[in-house]
Amino acid sequence: MREARVSTLQIIPIQHVPEITPGINLSECLRSGIKASGLEIEKGDIVAATQKIISKAEGRVVRLTDVSPSAFALLIAEQVDKDPRLIEVILRETRRIVRMRSDVMICETHHGFICANAGIDSSNVDNGSVTLLPKDPDRSARELAQYLGCGVIVTDTFGRVWRDGLLDAAIGISGVPPLVDLRGKVDRYGNSLQVTVLASADALAAAAGLAMGKTEETPAAFIRGFHWEQPKTDDHTIKALLRAPERDLFL
Amino acid sequence: MREARVSTLQIIPIQHVPEITPGINLSECLRSGIKASGLEIEKGDIVAATQKIISKAEGRVVRLTDVSPSAFALLIAEQVDKDPRLIEVILRETRRIVRMRSDVMICETHHGFICANAGIDSSNVDNGSVTLLPKDPDRSARELAQYLGCGVIVTDTFGRVWRDGLLDAAIGISGVPPLVDLRGKVDRYGNSLQVTVLASADALAAAAGLAMGKTEETPAAFIRGFHWEQPKTDDHTIKALLRAPERDLFL
Repeated sequence: MREARVSTLQIIPIQHVPEITPGINLSECLRSGIKASGLEIEKGDIVAATQKIISKAEGRVVRLTDVSPSAFALLIAEQVDKDPRLIEVILRETRRIVRMRSDVMICETHHGFICANAGIDSSNVDNGSVTLLPKDPDRSARELAQYLGCGVIVTDTFGRVWRDGLLDAAIGISGVPPLVDLRGKVDRYGNSLQVTVLASADALAAAAGLAMGKTEETPAAFIRGFHWEQPKTDDHTIKALLRAPERDLFL
Repeated sequence: MREARVSTLQIIPIQHVPEITPGINLSECLRSGIKASGLEIEKGDIVAATQKIISKAEGRVVRLTDVSPSAFALLIAEQVDKDPRLIEVILRETRRIVRMRSDVMICETHHGFICANAGIDSSNVDNGSVTLLPKDPDRSARELAQYLGCGVIVTDTFGRVWRDGLLDAAIGISGVPPLVDLRGKVDRYGNSLQVTVLASADALAAAAGLAMGKTEETPAAFIRGFHWEQPKTDDHTIKALLRAPERDLFL
C-alpha cells in the first residue's frame, strides 16, 4: 500500500471493441480498440474491463437449456421467484447464501465476493444464456496486463448496503494497487492521520464505470494519470479488498 | 434519473485553496483555486469538495475542551476506548448507534448517513478540535453551485461493509444526478436491462477522492466530461441515495 499521486486523472471509453465470443483473443481486441480510440499505452496507464467481456472470452457462459436443476435448486425455487435452472447456476458459483427473498439472492461467491445472484448475469449475452464471473479474475487481469503492458482492473457492478444505486467495483487486478495507504502521514496541523486507507482499485473501477455505458459498446475504459509507488514485484491481489466477516465492524 | 454519457472524463485536483476558517467565503476560495489551477468553469462541470472544508467554513468545528460529556456519554466511554467528550459530540450527531466496539462506533447520523463516529473527524483541524458534518450538505452544495455556476458534490470518506479500504461518497449534491437510470434500455441482444441504476454521484465522488490527497492541500476536485440529461428543475437530493433499512436486501 503506497502513497498515490494524481495530476489530471483521465477516464476514456475504449470504443470499437468487437463482440466478444468464447475463445476470442480479448487482449488483441482491447489492444485494437485502444488504438482505434486514438490512444497509445504509456507507463502507468490502466485498462478497466467489465467482467462480462472477460467471462465471454473465457467461455464462462452457460445456456440454461443445458442445465438440470438439482433438488436443492428446486427447493429454493419455491421461495425465490427465479428460473430453477438459473438458481442451479447461482448455487454452483456460491459458497454461502447471505440473504434470500422472493426477488433476490445475495451470495458469497467462491472468490469471496458478496453480490446479487453470485455475479450471474443475463444482460449483454444472447437470450437464454447467462455469464458467470471469471474463475480467477486476478489471473484474467494478469494475462491482459502482460499482453497490453499496463495495469488492468476487471470490474463488476455491485449493489451496496445502506445506499441505493449500483457502483462498479474491482474483482480482479494486476499492476494496480488495491489500497493506497495514507496512514502515518501528517496533516498540516501535525496530526498524524490514523486510518486513511483508500480502496484505490474500487475507486478506479467506480470511475471507469462512469465511462462504460451498460448498453453501449464500451465494455472497457482507459485510465491515465493515476500514479503510485510501484512495488518491485507485483503481488497485488483482489483479496486485499475482501474483509473477513469477523473484522467487519459494520455488520 | 437519466441516461448519462461520457466522452473523456477528467478529474483535476483543485489547488491553491487557502486554509479554510469559520466564516470564510468558501465559494470565493474555490473559485480562485479553480482559476489558479488553470481551469475555467464551463457548462456541465462539477466541483467536488470534501466535507472538511465545508464544515470548517460553516463553523461546524467543536473544541473538545468546551464539551461536557453527559452521563450517557460517560457510560458509553466504559465500553468504547474514546475520549468521553468526543463520544458526547458523536452522540449529538447520532440518530441511531448501528454498531459499537471498543475501538469504533458506527452511527446513523441525523441526515441518515451510516458511518464511523457519525462523521466526526479530527484530521486536518487544529489539535483538540473536531469537525462535524455540515448540517445540511445538500444546502451547502446548492450554495456553492449557485456561486460557482456548476454542479457540486460534497464528499466524505466512508468505510464499507464486506470490503476493506475507504471510498469517498457523496453526502450532498446540487446540479448532479444522484442516480442514472439505465433500466428499460435494451442491450445489443434485445434483452432489456432489468436493474441498472448507477449511483452516479457516489461514483463521481469516488473518482474525485483519487484526486484529493488526504494530507495534501487539495480539498477539492474538478470534474469535466460527465454529461447527463439535465432536468428542468434541479430537485436532486442526497436522500435518493439513502436506502431505507426495510428495503436493504443486503442486511
